[in-house]
Amino acid sequence: MEMKTLAQERSKAEFDVEAMKVVWAGGEASLRLNQRMAELVANDPEFQKDSRVMQTRSELLKDTFRKAAHAWELINKLHFTEEEARCLRKHIDQPSYADLHWGVFIPAIKGQATDAQQKKWLPLAYSQAIIGCYAQTELGHGSNVQRLETTATFEPSTDGFIVNTPTIAATKWWPGGLGKVSTHAIVHARLLTNGKDYGIHAFIVQIRSLEDHQPLPGITVADIGTKFGSRAYNSVDNGLLRFNNVHIPRENMLMRLATVTKEGKYVHSNVPTQLAYGAMVNVRKSIVMDASYSLARAVTIAVRYSAVRRQFGVQDGQPEMQSRLFPLLATAYAYRFLGQWMSSLYSDTMACFENNDFSTLPEVHACTAGLKSIATSTTADGIEECRKLCGGHGYLTSSGLPDLFAVYVPSCTYEGDNVILLLQVARYLMKTLKFLGSGKEPSGTAAYLSNVTELVSKNCEVAKESDWISPKTLRYAFEARSARLALKCATQIAAASTQDEGFSEASCELLGASRAHCELIIVTRFMGALEREIPGRGVKNQLQILCNIYALSLVTTRAGDFLMTGYLSPEQVELAKSQLRDLFKKVRHNAVSLVDAFDYTDFYLGSSLGRYDGNVYESLYNEALKDPTNASAVTEGYTEFIRPILKQQLGTSMSRL
Amino acid sequence: MEMKTLAQERSKAEFDVEAMKVVWAGGEASLRLNQRMAELVANDPEFQKDSRVMQTRSELLKDTFRKAAHAWELINKLHFTEEEARCLRKHIDQPSYADLHWGVFIPAIKGQATDAQQKKWLPLAYSQAIIGCYAQTELGHGSNVQRLETTATFEPSTDGFIVNTPTIAATKWWPGGLGKVSTHAIVHARLLTNGKDYGIHAFIVQIRSLEDHQPLPGITVADIGTKFGSRAYNSVDNGLLRFNNVHIPRENMLMRLATVTKEGKYVHSNVPTQLAYGAMVNVRKSIVMDASYSLARAVTIAVRYSAVRRQFGVQDGQPEMQSRLFPLLATAYAYRFLGQWMSSLYSDTMACFENNDFSTLPEVHACTAGLKSIATSTTADGIEECRKLCGGHGYLTSSGLPDLFAVYVPSCTYEGDNVILLLQVARYLMKTLKFLGSGKEPSGTAAYLSNVTELVSKNCEVAKESDWISPKTLRYAFEARSARLALKCATQIAAASTQDEGFSEASCELLGASRAHCELIIVTRFMGALEREIPGRGVKNQLQILCNIYALSLVTTRAGDFLMTGYLSPEQVELAKSQLRDLFKKVRHNAVSLVDAFDYTDFYLGSSLGRYDGNVYESLYNEALKDPTNASAVTEGYTEFIRPILKQQLGTSMSRL
Repeated sequence: MEMKTLAQERSKAEFDVEAMKVVWAGGEASLRLNQRMAELVANDPEFQKDSRVMQTRSELLKDTFRKAAHAWELINKLHFTEEEARCLRKHIDQPSYADLHWGVFIPAIKGQATDAQQKKWLPLAYSQAIIGCYAQTELGHGSNVQRLETTATFEPSTDGFIVNTPTIAATKWWPGGLGKVSTHAIVHARLLTNGKDYGIHAFIVQIRSLEDHQPLPGITVADIGTKFGSRAYNSVDNGLLRFNNVHIPRENMLMRLATVTKEGKYVHSNVPTQLAYGAMVNVRKSIVMDASYSLARAVTIAVRYSAVRRQFGVQDGQPEMQSRLFPLLATAYAYRFLGQWMSSLYSDTMACFENNDFSTLPEVHACTAGLKSIATSTTADGIEECRKLCGGHGYLTSSGLPDLFAVYVPSCTYEGDNVILLLQVARYLMKTLKFLGSGKEPSGTAAYLSNVTELVSKNCEVAKESDWISPKTLRYAFEARSARLALKCATQIAAASTQDEGFSEASCELLGASRAHCELIIVTRFMGALEREIPGRGVKNQLQILCNIYALSLVTTRAGDFLMTGYLSPEQVELAKSQLRDLFKKVRHNAVSLVDAFDYTDFYLGSSLGRYDGNVYESLYNEALKDPTNASAVTEGYTEFIRPILKQQLGTSMSRL
Repeated sequence: MEMKTLAQERSKAEFDVEAMKVVWAGGEASLRLNQRMAELVANDPEFQKDSRVMQTRSELLKDTFRKAAHAWELINKLHFTEEEARCLRKHIDQPSYADLHWGVFIPAIKGQATDAQQKKWLPLAYSQAIIGCYAQTELGHGSNVQRLETTATFEPSTDGFIVNTPTIAATKWWPGGLGKVSTHAIVHARLLTNGKDYGIHAFIVQIRSLEDHQPLPGITVADIGTKFGSRAYNSVDNGLLRFNNVHIPRENMLMRLATVTKEGKYVHSNVPTQLAYGAMVNVRKSIVMDASYSLARAVTIAVRYSAVRRQFGVQDGQPEMQSRLFPLLATAYAYRFLGQWMSSLYSDTMACFENNDFSTLPEVHACTAGLKSIATSTTADGIEECRKLCGGHGYLTSSGLPDLFAVYVPSCTYEGDNVILLLQVARYLMKTLKFLGSGKEPSGTAAYLSNVTELVSKNCEVAKESDWISPKTLRYAFEARSARLALKCATQIAAASTQDEGFSEASCELLGASRAHCELIIVTRFMGALEREIPGRGVKNQLQILCNIYALSLVTTRAGDFLMTGYLSPEQVELAKSQLRDLFKKVRHNAVSLVDAFDYTDFYLGSSLGRYDGNVYESLYNEALKDPTNASAVTEGYTEFIRPILKQQLGTSMSRL
C-alpha cells in the first residue's frame, strides 16, 4: 500500500461526516456541548497537558489539584450546569478526586440518605465545603461486600456508633479521593447493635479536620501508592483508611433503607431495598458509554496512523494492516448504540421500580452485569491491539496509547470483576432454563430462551455469502449459539454430583455461554438502532456495514462456539469470512471519515500518531525534543557515572574482562 | 475455596522441588550462578529497588547510570566472566544502556567486522573506553531495513564516507543507549559510491566527544522521550540521531561481507552473506528464553496470591480461580524447553553454516521467526491475564505486575513485528507446499508437511478421554491442524486473481496457519524434552502433566481450527476438555511448588502479592506507607488548591451550582 494522505482518504468518504457526528454524539445539543468544552479546555493554558513528561507522584498530584481548583473556579464563574461541569472534567482528561466527589459521593447521598439527611449534606457537598469519597472495598475484600469486616457498633450512651477496623485485611483500600483530599467518607461497615450483626450499612464519617486538614483522632489515612502507568490513575489519591474507636453521631448512618433508634433498635424503612439496584444500572450504562469513547479514541489514533504510515508493499509481507482495525471500529459504534439503549433501559427500569414492580430486576441485573464485563474487557484488549498495530511508536507516550490503556484497564475490575460478573450472568441463565415452562417465562433480553427447543434443533440455512447480511439470520444465529451453549452447561451441571461442583467444573463453559448471551444483546441492539430513520447522506448505510462487520467478525472469531454446537457447518463459517472480506472492502475508503465522526480534537487525543493532519513524523520528532532530558546536550549523571567508565577511572581494578 | 497458606500448599507437592529447580535452570551450574547473583544483588544496598516510587525521567536515568557504574565496578573487581556479568545485569532488573552495549554493539562488531577491525574496536568496547549502540531503525522505517534512507556516500578525496540524513523520516529512532550515553553507533546506511547505490551497510560512527561527551559536529542526538509504564524502559535512553555531512574514515565501514577500495570500488568478500542469519537465530533463542522467564515471573505472583487470597466460596460465584492459571504455568515450562531446544538448533545451524551448508536456512528462519512471534505475544497477554487474575491489587505497582507488563510488551515489536513475522512463516509454508513432490522435500520442523496427503484425509480417532494423553495422538492432531490450515490457504490463494492479492486477502487465515505450525513445534519440543531421563522424585511426572495441559488447552482454545478443518468432531473436543479438567485436578496441589521451582527471590520478584511467605496484606500496607506522598499528613498543594475550595474562597463567584 503506497502512502496516502488523510485528505485523500477523506475525499473518498461515501457519507456525510457532520451528520454522523450528530448520531455519534447522541444529538445536536450533545455535539455542541462537547465541542464547546473541548475548545474551552484546549485554549486554557491552565489545562495544558504535559503528559510526555515524567513527574514525581507529588508533582503529578499537585498538578491535578491545581487543575481541579481551576475547573471549579470556571464552573462557578460561568455558572455551569452539572452536565456542563461533568463534560468539562471529562475534557480535562486527567482523573482527579473531583470525579469521585461528584460521580460517587454525591449520588450515594442522594440514593441512600433520607430527605432530612440530604438536606443537611447535599448543600455542603455541592459547594465543596466538604469533599467526599466512597469507602467500601477493604484490603482483603474486594468484590464481596458481605464479607467486609469494618464494624460500626451502636453505643446508646453516646447516641452514636463506634467505628473500628479489626484486622489489617479490614483496612479500607482503593477509594479514590480518600488518600490526600477527602474530608468525609461514606464508610461501609457491619452494623452491630444489641449484640446482633445486621450486616453492611453505610455511614458518613468525617476523616479530616475542616480547619487544618489533619486526620481526626482515631483515623489513619494515607495514599495506597503508585499504580499502573506513568500517569493514568496516579493523578488520583486512592487511599487507605483505618478506624480506632472513632465515634460518629447516630444520624450519620445513611438511613433511607433502615434506621437505628436511640434505644439501638434496628428498623427497616418502607423503602424497597431493590431501589439500590437502579443506581447500579446507571453506573453500568456509564461504563459502557465510556467503553465506546475509549475504544473510539484508540481506533482514531490507529486508523489515522495506519493510513499515513509508510507501509510495506504487499510483497514485503505486510498486507491489509488496516483491516484488523475494522472490527474494532465497528465495536466502538456497537457500544455507542448499546450505551444509548442502556440509558432507556435505566429509565424504563426506574419507572417500573417506582410502581413497585421489581419483576424485571433479575434480567436487568444479569444483562447489565454481562454487558459491563464484555464491553470493558473487549475495550481494554482493543486499545492494546490498536497500540500494537501502531508498531514500535505505539510504545511511546507521545502516541497517547500507553496512558489510554493504563487509565482504561481498571474498568475490568472496578464495579465488579469481569469474570465474577460473567459468572453471575451464567447463574441467571441456568436459573432461567431451569424454570422454563413453569409459567415464569423469561422476558427482555432473555426472552429468546423461551424458544430454546427450536433454537437447539434448527440449524443455520445460510447457503451463500449474501445470506449472512440478513438481520433475521444473524439474530437467529446468535440466539442459537447462546441457547445451545447455555443448555450444554445446564446438562453438564445436572450430571455433576452436586450443583456447586458442577458449576465450578463448568466455569469455563459458563463464561462462554454468558459471553454468547451478551454478544447476542449487543448485536441485536445495534440492529435495533438501525431500524429507525437516520438522517444524513449515506450515514445509515455506513452504520449498516459496521453492524454487519461487528456481527460477522464475531461469527468468525467465535467460530468454535458455532461449530461445537453444530449450528453452523465449516462451509457456512467460510461464507461468513468471505462476506466479511467484502464488507472490509466497503468500509476501507470510509474508515478515516468514520473516526473523524468521533470528533476528537488533537488536544484531547494527545497523540502524535493520531493527528488530524497526519503530520506524524514531525510531530513525534518535536515531542521528543521537548523531553526534559534533552534540555542539556550532556546528560545529568555523566560526570559521576559515565565519564569515570570511559576514562577507565572507575573503582579499583579496571582490568579487561 | 477457603484460605490456605502457602506452607500448607507446599506440603502437598508430589515431586522434588529442588530437582525441578535444576531442570528449570538448565543444570546445577546455571542454578548456582543464578542464586549467587540473585543474592549478591539483593544484599547490595546500591541495587535496592525503589520501584514503588515515581521518579522524574532524569532521576530515573541517573539512578540507572549509577547502578550500571556500580555493576561495572563489581564485574571488574570480582573478575566476572561475560556470562557472570550478564547474569548480574539481569538480576539488577533495571534495563540500561549497558544491555545494548554488551548485548548488541559488541556482538555486531564480532559478526560484521573483519578480524583487523575487531582487533581495533573490541578492546575499546570490552573496556568500555567507548560505549556503543546499534542504530538501524529509522523514524519512518521500522521493520523494513531495505527502505532505510540514511546515506553513506564514499568520497575518494578524503578516503571516507559522508553520512547524511536526508529526511525527517530518515532520522535514526529507537536505538537503546543512543540518546544520552553512547559515544559510538553502528549506523546502517545506504552505501553510495561511484554514483551507484549498493544497499544497506553498517558503519561505525563516533557521535560524542570522548573528552567532554558533547555531540560531534554535524551530529544531532537526543532522547526520544518517555515510554509505556512508570519505569520499564524509561531507564533506557532510546535515542534519535541525525547526520549532517558527517565524515568517517573508510575503515569504519564494517567490512566482513563487503569492502570499498580506496578508489571507491565495491567488492564482495568471500564470506557468505547467510552467516548474518546465524546471529538472528541466537537472538530469537534469547527472546524465547526471556519469554519463559517473564511468564514464569507473572505466574509465580498470580499462583501464590491466588493460593493465599481470601476467596469467595463457590457459592459466591467465584469458583476455580486458579485453574485459569494452569495453562499459563504449563506455557512457561513449554517455552523453557523450547528455548533449550533453540540453543541446540543454533549450534547445529552454525555447524552447517561453517561447512557452507545453508540448505536449512529457510526452514530455520521461518521456524525461529514464528516461535519468537508466538512466544512473545502469548507471554505479553499471559502477563496481563495474570495481572487481571490478581484483581484490583494487580493494578498496584507494588504487585510487580504493571511494570513487568510494560517492560515485556515491546518484545512483541522489536526484532520483527509479530504480525510481520507470522506472515513470513506463512510465506514459507505456502512455498513448501508448492514445491512438495518436486524433489525438494521439507526438513526439520516442516518435515511433517511431506505427509500432507494423509494428514488432510485421516481424521482423529480419539474415542475416550484418556486417548488424548498419548503423545502420538497429540502430535498427529497438531500436524493435521497445521497441514490442513496451510492447504486451505494455498487453495484460497490459488483461486485469487493474482498471488499478491490472494496473499493479502487471506492474511487472517495465513496468520492462523502460521500459528498452528508454531504451536505444533512447541508441543512436539515439549514432548521431545520428556523423552530423556529426568532425575528427581515425581519431576518427570509433573512435567508430563504440564505438557498435556499445554497441548490440550491449545486443542480446546483453538477448537475452531480443529473443527473448521474437520479433523476433530465436537464430541472429541468435549473429550479433550474433560481430560483437561482431570489434569487440572492433578496439577492443583502442585501449583505452588511448581512456581517455587522457578526459584525467584522476593527481591527479584518485587511483588507484595507474590511473596514466598504469603504475607500479602501486611506487605501491601507497608509498601503503601512508604510512598513519598505519605511523608506528611497534609498533602502538598493543600494550601494553594484544596483549602480555598473548602473555605469557599476560590475565585470570584462561589455561588452554589
